[in-house]
Amino acid sequence: MSINFVEKTEFEFIEQIRSRYALQKIGDDCAVLPKDSKTDLVISTDLLVEDIDFKLEWTTPEFIGHKSLAVSLSDVAAMGAKPVWAMLSIGVPEEIWKTDFVERFYDGWFALANKFNVELIGGDVSKTPDEIVIDSIAAGETKRGKAILRSGAKVGDLIFLTGELGGAAAGLRLLEKGERYEKSKYKNLLRRQLKPNPQTEIGQILGAKNLATSMIDLSDGLIADLNHICRESKVGAKIFDDKIPDQFDLEKFHSVFNSSEIINFLLYSGEDFELLFTVNPKKKSQVEKELKNCKFSHVGEVTSSVEIIELISKEKSEILQPKGFRHF
Amino acid sequence: MSINFVEKTEFEFIEQIRSRYALQKIGDDCAVLPKDSKTDLVISTDLLVEDIDFKLEWTTPEFIGHKSLAVSLSDVAAMGAKPVWAMLSIGVPEEIWKTDFVERFYDGWFALANKFNVELIGGDVSKTPDEIVIDSIAAGETKRGKAILRSGAKVGDLIFLTGELGGAAAGLRLLEKGERYEKSKYKNLLRRQLKPNPQTEIGQILGAKNLATSMIDLSDGLIADLNHICRESKVGAKIFDDKIPDQFDLEKFHSVFNSSEIINFLLYSGEDFELLFTVNPKKKSQVEKELKNCKFSHVGEVTSSVEIIELISKEKSEILQPKGFRHF
Repeated sequence: MSINFVEKTEFEFIEQIRSRYALQKIGDDCAVLPKDSKTDLVISTDLLVEDIDFKLEWTTPEFIGHKSLAVSLSDVAAMGAKPVWAMLSIGVPEEIWKTDFVERFYDGWFALANKFNVELIGGDVSKTPDEIVIDSIAAGETKRGKAILRSGAKVGDLIFLTGELGGAAAGLRLLEKGERYEKSKYKNLLRRQLKPNPQTEIGQILGAKNLATSMIDLSDGLIADLNHICRESKVGAKIFDDKIPDQFDLEKFHSVFNSSEIINFLLYSGEDFELLFTVNPKKKSQVEKELKNCKFSHVGEVTSSVEIIELISKEKSEILQPKGFRHF
Repeated sequence: MSINFVEKTEFEFIEQIRSRYALQKIGDDCAVLPKDSKTDLVISTDLLVEDIDFKLEWTTPEFIGHKSLAVSLSDVAAMGAKPVWAMLSIGVPEEIWKTDFVERFYDGWFALANKFNVELIGGDVSKTPDEIVIDSIAAGETKRGKAILRSGAKVGDLIFLTGELGGAAAGLRLLEKGERYEKSKYKNLLRRQLKPNPQTEIGQILGAKNLATSMIDLSDGLIADLNHICRESKVGAKIFDDKIPDQFDLEKFHSVFNSSEIINFLLYSGEDFELLFTVNPKKKSQVEKELKNCKFSHVGEVTSSVEIIELISKEKSEILQPKGFRHF
């Protein structure tokens, strides 16, 4: 594979590294490692950088601490695993070190960690010249060989989504427009962006009961993340437009966002941290029973058109291109 | 414990977090986690930040890749463990992404990883506004309950050091003075700073043969790191001035460094990534036999004067204050 470094995206780069060095464990939300005869360890690392992943004037130290752990717990959930421990490296400029930022950051981090009994086992503290940087590592456990990969989707499987989409991107857009959390009447949307909740309970149920054939968390956007599943599973997908669980009451928001923005939030925007998973049709009723207390939707089906994603609406069917969030 | 955040050091901060949240696994080079009935997993994370931990004009992408892994492998070695896998998160500004930096960085990283059969299992790639940031995670294995901690030193134990000290700090001083690797006649000193070697083989021997009562790698400086052992083990130490293995042939370097600089390099400067370990006197001859092909020195003894470090020379004995490398 020959990729021009100048034009490569981060996904292409990771593919290149994976291919060149024959890496086996890269390509899922977490790496999967054998722990003992009954258990696998899954482990994830996420880098968060000030002014790329968060802006200090938009959020609070507690929210940043929460979100740093949440994004990694979301990766653990996407493997169907129970979170167990975490590590945290943080680098801050000297002027931030002198404030109460780091203490409040840890308060936010621990509030979420304690909710799921996640133990902090280590980390690093460093100085940086300008920006806050955080590396969040989280690990979980599954039964041996039962981690839910991106590569297990089969033609005919049903596609499900937890929760609702678009809130994180709408919150981001509001922040970009100058909305601030403290005084906002859109606090629920802003919280979706600033303090996302990992779907830890649902991930564990799907893993423990062996209900999903593949799973991913929505960090890059519905179509981009579905495309990751299609690529790894060598399948395609169709999505039913009217089934996508929409965080918007359009009546309420038409003065704030136009309809093309909203479509973009739903299909192409990241950071909702919901779970996208595929299910063998025979297990549909069991999924509905096990998740009866959770919000989830049946949004589509796995097809044999490899890496083709179709959006089906009443009027038409269209082929979508993955164009979710990219760093480069 | 009440610590004024404005004046705290990073060590005090970590102590504060450790105390407030009753963290059990923090305080060693690596966290130790049970893996299976025969094996423990040790795991470490290190954050490296451009212009704090390295400068692009002083080094090469390959050296930065090598050093990123080396610092974490050194932590694994300090637990007496065999390195097994690693993760790597890297954030780079867009203008660096467009160069061959990242490719060359990975080349340097993998050259060292392959030497010790360390598998890359995951990571993250992100954009940053200005600086390159790297978080390096490495894990190793020891026999169950046999990881070598900082807390096991006993009064009367002998203190040993691998290799030679002062080279990394001398190399850093040369770089600060404008010396550059390509054209330098001091390449061996510069390489100690830019491309340090973890003491992976020696760490594994000491761990597998159960030879050391405590161990740490020299990242903060001899006295500061010895002080970490003294604090965790609730002991003191005396060091014999003339036994400290000196990377300098003073005749050669007196025109470059003055003698107080050299003392500072030896006692208080970090990043030599040698191992400092304590040994029960009964095991001295076994250590000498097992490490007969390695460079190491007997430099002192563990005493009962808790957290007091004495430097013994022919003329005098003095009490040293830990003042090794601190970020804050």
